[in-house]
Amino acid sequence: MQTEIAKQLAFLKEIDQLKSVLRRSPLIDRSRRENSAEHSWHLAMYALILAPYANQPIQLGSVIQMLLLHDIVEIDAGDTPIHQAAGQSDQAEREAAAAVRLFGMLPEAQGRDLHALWTEFEAGTSADARFAKALDRLQPLIQNVATGGGTWNDFAVSYDQVVERYGPAIEGGAAKLWDEAKDLIREHFEKH
Amino acid sequence: MQTEIAKQLAFLKEIDQLKSVLRRSPLIDRSRRENSAEHSWHLAMYALILAPYANQPIQLGSVIQMLLLHDIVEIDAGDTPIHQAAGQSDQAEREAAAAVRLFGMLPEAQGRDLHALWTEFEAGTSADARFAKALDRLQPLIQNVATGGGTWNDFAVSYDQVVERYGPAIEGGAAKLWDEAKDLIREHFEKH
Repeated sequence: MQTEIAKQLAFLKEIDQLKSVLRRSPLIDRSRRENSAEHSWHLAMYALILAPYANQPIQLGSVIQMLLLHDIVEIDAGDTPIHQAAGQSDQAEREAAAAVRLFGMLPEAQGRDLHALWTEFEAGTSADARFAKALDRLQPLIQNVATGGGTWNDFAVSYDQVVERYGPAIEGGAAKLWDEAKDLIREHFEKH
Repeated sequence: MQTEIAKQLAFLKEIDQLKSVLRRSPLIDRSRRENSAEHSWHLAMYALILAPYANQPIQLGSVIQMLLLHDIVEIDAGDTPIHQAAGQSDQAEREAAAAVRLFGMLPEAQGRDLHALWTEFEAGTSADARFAKALDRLQPLIQNVATGGGTWNDFAVSYDQVVERYGPAIEGGAAKLWDEAKDLIREHFEKH
């Protein structure tokens, strides 16, 4: 029988693997690709700094918690880049199974609560989840603009495709940030 | 004149550099050293999971925010490993200057609030800061035990030195976690 602390430390060791899940997005200095753990840190900082721009009142603590844990399912299911449609068919299923396994490592009540927070993010319907999802789209957009194109170059993505793929989520959670982002996208595609 | 949003996005781009500050601690799979951004993410997850063990009542949201931003000064000042005394003499000064520069990039009221949170962490006297500092010591201890020694091997650190260097901070913020950690340290040094 594992004690509660032992279960919690086992979970915290298990999620160390998120540091080895590579995303397509580059670091701003272009030295390498970003991993999902540091991406999650960056998103939590985005929430802390940009909270005033949420469309609706949010609970900042819940938004930050969601962003910290939203990607841990990638430990089992891998990252699926927004600009690659292939391989996404069973992605939701694999992520759901990963959530059961990972949150199931925790003491029951705690695992249930955090699993529910992950599910709330995935559903994307609450005010907190909509703002969290807006930031999850905004951060790679900023990384791409700052690196002269980033994944947009890798996948030959057009201005219209960027607006279509990033717009609804960002505008749906933080319309003021989408206004700013639209200007950045326009300036980028004028230059490139 | 930069708008508030422009200042905030500039700050969020600036702190991308934390992903390139390398710590001495290894990842658990030993594939490479940990960087300070993913370390900060891991610590925020430690706070979320281990909050019930704080010695005193804490505000979990504040603890998580502290841990997210406590290391950003390393962008200018670098990381100072616990087992290396050399080079620490002007570390506090360089970190204080970094805090002024980085938080100074933000809109004034926001920068002032977050700078105050960073200062609270550094002082380590509030209940929130004591718990945050306990986790900042516990996480590398767990990484070291999980990798058969980690930085303890690199610096030929003894059992007594580990107890002396990690104990006060962990026990001061979360005595129950120190009870658990002591067992892990003892088991480690019996085997190695």
